[in-house]
Order: sequence, then C-alpha cells, then structure tokens
Amino acid sequence: MNANVQDVVVLLGDSITEFGWEPHGLAQRLAQTYVRKFDVINRGFSGYNTEWVIPVFEQFFAKSQDQARLPKVQLLTIWFGANDACIPPEPQYVPIDAYAANLSKLVNFVKSPDSPYYSPATRVVLITPPPIAIKQWNEVLAGQGEEPQGRSLDSAHRYAEATKEVGRKEGVPVVDAWTGIWEACGKGEEGLPRYFSDGLHLNANGYAVVYDALLKAISESYPEIHPDALGFVFADFMEVMPSQNRAQTLIKRNVFDK
Amino acid sequence: MNANVQDVVVLLGDSITEFGWEPHGLAQRLAQTYVRKFDVINRGFSGYNTEWVIPVFEQFFAKSQDQARLPKVQLLTIWFGANDACIPPEPQYVPIDAYAANLSKLVNFVKSPDSPYYSPATRVVLITPPPIAIKQWNEVLAGQGEEPQGRSLDSAHRYAEATKEVGRKEGVPVVDAWTGIWEACGKGEEGLPRYFSDGLHLNANGYAVVYDALLKAISESYPEIHPDALGFVFADFMEVMPSQNRAQTLIKRNVFDK
Repeated sequence: MNANVQDVVVLLGDSITEFGWEPHGLAQRLAQTYVRKFDVINRGFSGYNTEWVIPVFEQFFAKSQDQARLPKVQLLTIWFGANDACIPPEPQYVPIDAYAANLSKLVNFVKSPDSPYYSPATRVVLITPPPIAIKQWNEVLAGQGEEPQGRSLDSAHRYAEATKEVGRKEGVPVVDAWTGIWEACGKGEEGLPRYFSDGLHLNANGYAVVYDALLKAISESYPEIHPDALGFVFADFMEVMPSQNRAQTLIKRNVFDK
Repeated sequence: MNANVQDVVVLLGDSITEFGWEPHGLAQRLAQTYVRKFDVINRGFSGYNTEWVIPVFEQFFAKSQDQARLPKVQLLTIWFGANDACIPPEPQYVPIDAYAANLSKLVNFVKSPDSPYYSPATRVVLITPPPIAIKQWNEVLAGQGEEPQGRSLDSAHRYAEATKEVGRKEGVPVVDAWTGIWEACGKGEEGLPRYFSDGLHLNANGYAVVYDALLKAISESYPEIHPDALGFVFADFMEVMPSQNRAQTLIKRNVFDK
C-alpha cells in the first residue's frame, strides 16, 4: 500500500474472524495492542470454508518474488472449521480429512520453500473452531424464519481436534478456542451462550478467551513478536519533545530494536 | 504488504487518532464498516503535532513511482490541532499560521502533481481538533501528580477554525469535530465531559459524532467510496454456495463494481 512502513498481522478465517472488528473482537483487540508496531489486516470471509478460501489465499497473499517490496506478514492466524464442520448435506460442509488437508495446504503456502507464496518471515498460528451453542443458534435462525442448520457441538469438537493434529504434524502452534471456551463455560452446554452473540459467533467474552490464548501462544512460540517485545516504528513523543535533533529522532525504526 | 489485495483508508493524526482502535473508536468503526472492502491503517501518533509528523509522512507514504504496485490509499484523513493548539511555552505548541501551513503541506503531499508523493487516487478529508474539557483534563493530570497543561477551549477553537480555512483554501472537505461535539454537548463546557474519556481524548460518544460527520462528508464529497457504494473484494458466501463455477465466482473483484 502507499502506507507501507509497518509490517502486518493477517487474520485469515471465516465470519468469526470477519466480525473481529466489532468492539472487543479479536481484530480490534490486536489492532489496539499492536498500534504503531504492526498493522492488523482482517481477511475473514463470512460463510467460507477451507476449500473456498484456498483460491482466495492465492490471490491476496503476495508471491515470494513480490514480498521484498511489501510489508512483511509477521504473523498469520488461520481460523476455520466452524463452517467446514457443518453436517452434510449442508453446502458449507467439508469432510474432516479434506479440512485437515486444506489447513496443511494453507500452512505450507507460507512455510514450504517449494511454494510460490513461501514467506520465511511469516509465523503461523492455527486456531480451532469454537464450540457452538446450537440451541441458541437455532433459536436465532427461527427468529429470522429460517430452518435449523446442520451443525453440532460434537462435529465442531471433532474439527477442533483435527486442527490440533494438523498443528502437531506441521509444527505450528495451535490456539485451542474450543477447549478454552468449553472450560470457561464450565463444560456444559447451558453455559455456552455467555460466550456467543448468537450461538455461532463469539461475543466479547468469547473473543477474550481467544485473544488471551493467542497472546499466550505468541509468548510461548514467537516471543519476539509479543507486543511487549516490540518498539514503536516512530518515536514516542516523550522522546521527540526534548530531542535536540528531531529529524534524527523521527527516523523510522526497526520494531524489533526496542 | 504480502496481503496486498485491498486498497486502504489511512488515518493520520495524533493520540485522538491513535486511540481510535479502542472499542467504538474511529478506526474500529471504520474498519468494521469497510471490512472486505478497504483496510484501515492507523497512523496516529500520540503527542505529535503537524510539525513532527511531516518527516514521518515522508517516510511512510509511498512515492509516486512506487504506488502502482501497492494498494491505493483511497482515503486519507488528516486530524491534528489538539497538540498544535497547546499554549506556549508548551513544547507541543505550533503557531497557528505554521499549523495551517503544515496542514496545507500535508494535503499537497498527495494532491500536488509536483510532489514526490503525488497520489491522484487519494481523497483527503481534514478533521478539526475537538473541544477540550479542560477542567476534566487537569483533574486527570492532577490525579497522576502532574501540573495543569497549557491548553484551552478557546485555543482549540481557533485551530479548528484555521483547519476549516485550510480546507476552503485547498478545496478539501472538512469534518468539523469541534462544532459537532460543541453542539452535541449543548454548547456549554459543563456538557463536554460526556464526550471525553479524560477531557482531552474522546470516548465512544465523541468518536460517534466524528464518525457520523466523516461518513456524511464521504457521502457528500466522495460518494463513490461510501461503504454502501462498494462491493466485497471476494464474493459473499451466499453467491459462492450455489455457484456452478466456484473458481470463477471466487476471483477477486473491483470494489467499485458493486
């Protein structure tokens, strides 16, 4: 972009990512945390599954030869499964083995030296689908005059487990949104609605669980990009104000040189 | 950036812009509104004035010859004055004529064909500094053990008027945050704190006034980039789901072809 001085965090996912710009959503929280360090780019696509997003990824992620003149993607989160885990014949359904293969493909787009999108600077985090408060979701649908959907807590759980298996296989950290929310709600379906806006999408409570788990995963796996480890690209005004050489003080910095 | 498919909105300013990633802040609201259409880039620098930001602009905004291969800045908001309007000898103070000249310089960085940063695709909006609830702000400072600062409602008002004059001179629309908040609060200082988190920085009420006025300015001056006029870069899943040719349906689109 014209405004090309900061590197970026890219959030790839479905509606639960797209809606993350809501107040207290995942994108909003990350953007606030990383302000003046990394820009946060939301590539959430409501309703999408891992199959549909592959051609999308191939169009939005820069090829290796173009990456040098573009801000680096320092962190890529990949958060699907909520739609893949629909129960057939729902059209969003992706069989669990294909879901796992698609996740691996997305990871290897950036991690495999053979990929045209190979981006060695990009750290990847997988996020599992959350549970679903199916009774709440079907009530919301009924309120809109729609039929109940083929979704289930058990199916979401199996796709969450498959996500963790992909993480192990590909050597990528996994934020277990499923278990985090399940444990937070007391491991009972009756507690789930407190974490959802409508049974399927997270509210501030749900996003808080995922945000905290993501920051923990960053601390553990990629501590060099934890917000606390990074400096501002442009100096704090408390440094600018007394500077005897403001032109020098205002030269852009490497965020990793805190 | 690696994720280079969407054009961008750039918010340039001081702390009132930087803090816009807060829930209900200006950046958060715009990012939510423009999701899947434009990315929102926050270039707010707490404590900065128009003098200090000029060398910063020259480092973060791409030069004309580099712009073609980077996402376009479709909209640039320039929102200063809160710090420039400090009363001397406060070190953030910028004389009002210099403030106006600096604003003109920032506008002409992108609008003047002679500028190395000339960006004919970039629409500019100026935003005036808001009022200041000086009693509230000095109480906050006192609570932190700090002395009262040299700021005043009247000075902020004069810099707001100067901003509007620059807008007229440069032919750029102006969002009058000062008047918007002053009228919303009933034109009395006692009503101001309802629009501020601390007397200087806006809360959700204050940002709502500015957001609404900005969307109105976009409607009036640049209707082609009003969020309602734009389509998604990648298709809505309701179009993907029944598609007989998903590869075709998933090809990225021009947001202006709604």
